[in-house]
Amino acid sequence: MFSLTIRDHMMIAHSFHGEIFGPAQRLHGATYVVDVTFKRPELDQDDLIVDIALAGQVLGEVLAEFNMRNLDEIDAFRGRNTTTEFMASVVFKRMSQAIGDGRLGETGRGLTTLSVTLHESHLAWASYEGAL
Amino acid sequence: MFSLTIRDHMMIAHSFHGEIFGPAQRLHGATYVVDVTFKRPELDQDDLIVDIALAGQVLGEVLAEFNMRNLDEIDAFRGRNTTTEFMASVVFKRMSQAIGDGRLGETGRGLTTLSVTLHESHLAWASYEGAL
Amino acid sequence: MFSLTIRDHMMIAHSFHGEIFGPAQRLHGATYVVDVTFKRPELDQDDLIVDIALAGQVLGEVLAEFNMRNLDEIDAFRGRNTTTEFMASVVFKRMSQAIGDGRLGETGRGLTTLSVTLHESHLAWASYEGAL
Amino acid sequence: MFSLTIRDHMMIAHSFHGEIFGPAQRLHGATYVVDVTFKRPELDQDDLIVDIALAGQVLGEVLAEFNMRNLDEIDAFRGRNTTTEFMASVVFKRMSQAIGDGRLGETGRGLTTLSVTLHESHLAWASYEGAL
Amino acid sequence: MFSLTIRDHMMIAHSFHGEIFGPAQRLHGATYVVDVTFKRPELDQDDLIVDIALAGQVLGEVLAEFNMRNLDEIDAFRGRNTTTEFMASVVFKRMSQAIGDGRLGETGRGLTTLSVTLHESHLAWASYEGAL
Amino acid sequence: MFSLTIRDHMMIAHSFHGEIFGPAQRLHGATYVVDVTFKRPELDQDDLIVDIALAGQVLGEVLAEFNMRNLDEIDAFRGRNTTTEFMASVVFKRMSQAIGDGRLGETGRGLTTLSVTLHESHLAWASYEGAL
Repeated sequence: MFSLTIRDHMMIAHSFHGEIFGPAQRLHGATYVVDVTFKRPELDQDDLIVDIALAGQVLGEVLAEFNMRNLDEIDAFRGRNTTTEFMASVVFKRMSQAIGDGRLGETGRGLTTLSVTLHESHLAWASYEGAL
Repeated sequence: MFSLTIRDHMMIAHSFHGEIFGPAQRLHGATYVVDVTFKRPELDQDDLIVDIALAGQVLGEVLAEFNMRNLDEIDAFRGRNTTTEFMASVVFKRMSQAIGDGRLGETGRGLTTLSVTLHESHLAWASYEGAL
Repeated sequence: MFSLTIRDHMMIAHSFHGEIFGPAQRLHGATYVVDVTFKRPELDQDDLIVDIALAGQVLGEVLAEFNMRNLDEIDAFRGRNTTTEFMASVVFKRMSQAIGDGRLGETGRGLTTLSVTLHESHLAWASYEGAL
Repeated sequence: MFSLTIRDHMMIAHSFHGEIFGPAQRLHGATYVVDVTFKRPELDQDDLIVDIALAGQVLGEVLAEFNMRNLDEIDAFRGRNTTTEFMASVVFKRMSQAIGDGRLGETGRGLTTLSVTLHESHLAWASYEGAL
Repeated sequence: MFSLTIRDHMMIAHSFHGEIFGPAQRLHGATYVVDVTFKRPELDQDDLIVDIALAGQVLGEVLAEFNMRNLDEIDAFRGRNTTTEFMASVVFKRMSQAIGDGRLGETGRGLTTLSVTLHESHLAWASYEGAL
Repeated sequence: MFSLTIRDHMMIAHSFHGEIFGPAQRLHGATYVVDVTFKRPELDQDDLIVDIALAGQVLGEVLAEFNMRNLDEIDAFRGRNTTTEFMASVVFKRMSQAIGDGRLGETGRGLTTLSVTLHESHLAWASYEGAL
């Protein structure tokens, strides 16, 4: 199985609800360093997994929805905690939809699995992986 | 599949037996940077994989058994080589047992897979992964 | 010249004022991975630059003032932009004062220079260095 | 499942053909930081996954075929694009063959899976993983 | 003293002349991960060292001269070895000139020192630092 | 000013004496990832700071004195605590002497400053820098 990973990042504010979060119930923020891994069993005719320039551009567009924002104000997240693991699944869904919509071009159609990792610090990170 | 990783470390002394180890047969030591990955198919009601503060506390307790110690003097390791890969499986067992004992709370009960990686240098690391 | 660096982190929300900041004028946030470097020309009688356990504890106390907070709500920062470089100087001042107050013990008194680096992402970081 | 990873690197020149590559159609180059992961379900009698010194030596021999070379001049790559993902599969094949040929000794025979990752920058990396 | 560092990269081919270079006399290549550090004694009125977006844009323009190129074909380098240390000084000169030309805007005029580091692998990197 | 850094590592056992060290008074160990930085104001006739292959070989020889050893048994360290900062100064002295002895060849004679950093974990590192 082949896989390609690209890295970008976003900087967001948010707060959590629930006693389990302790001081993170206060409004705070995070830099999420975002790794997206694309997998497919065989390379395409150009010896590529995916067009890396196009993949980077689409990832940038996906992250622009959240970058430099307060996630508490985004309607789609109402009633949820925008934890690192939750946001990994959100980026997964957006990237997955972009691939389904053909935004990664022909090479995007050969992808079978996608994985998204968000690093919240040098001490913790979370991922969501699923089939396409 | 969701996964969350937390990082800690321990500093130990040990020696190996067997010609295959060359100079590592002498008493020496290592800093093990320890990554523990918790996996589960769905988030809990707080949008969490596991209570990260509790997980970090339990990992610290597990590593305290070995940190600042000479592993050659630990009875449980008699007759074994405390290689990086072996110690990864030891930390896996301790964490796995802690989860089974409920020390990660209710969220800990939803975990299905655990992976432990010990980095011995910038050039080598070893892991043990298994079901819970 | 000897130097010792310790690493910790804090997660904060904030916003900037001024057109130069573009989208960062919106409320957003950051994980700051914080490196503090202590310098002195000679080691003390224990062959130490500083008591590393004590230094880590004091750094944690300094960061606790900002960690999991919205910096826009902190009175001391009114009228300032809490940029990465500005916050590096703030942590420098707090640590510098702690050393002056003897909170790093006797070894702290031999320190001559302090440097604080805040990493805001894998692509950018800022420092403040000064004499003690 | 146990896994052990070792890291090495190679520095190569190459060019790509196909419009999708844009400026990378020109002769350029890359440092590939190479991670090879060896997996097996149980440790051997020495508590090892593989003889790490031997594994490092064989990896160095495999990379020596490409290191400090222009990949465009290597016959085996004629008609292919030596992308990061393609080169990951090439290193996989060479290491896989070396294991089959017994160059990792007896411990090498217990390995069941191999994974090779080539990092082309701090922003992108590619892997090939397969059974042995 | 304040400092701000930004990171970018370039991928180049080149060869060296002189027996001291051994196999690096052959045409090969490198990924250079480039860190540029800007220093100034005081922050500007926006609490900035430099406009980070503008600095990143200018660095990208400077690296575009070399990125995806064979350095052996660049006239300005004729008779020189484009070693990592030499290229660090080249990027320094280009950035220094850009600052002098006002391409970093008003904030650029307050800078007093510049440092450029090129990482050629996980095992080696070189810098050039000078006054502005 | 030009600088070049190379990285290697060593794995050692040791113990400390003095209450300030707490649990580190017990026999334990560390992986020290070692960075050595060579500085000189101008490049040599080959556009080099130092012969990197030769520098790596000499650093390996210096570290071989300590690698895979229990530092408590080394006579030269009797009565000292082999802290990270102390060991940084020891590696500095050995490298400095090697340069003085001409073991880095002609290029070594142009070096003016040397810096040695030992990373003991992902959270702490220490350096010693001095003139040659």
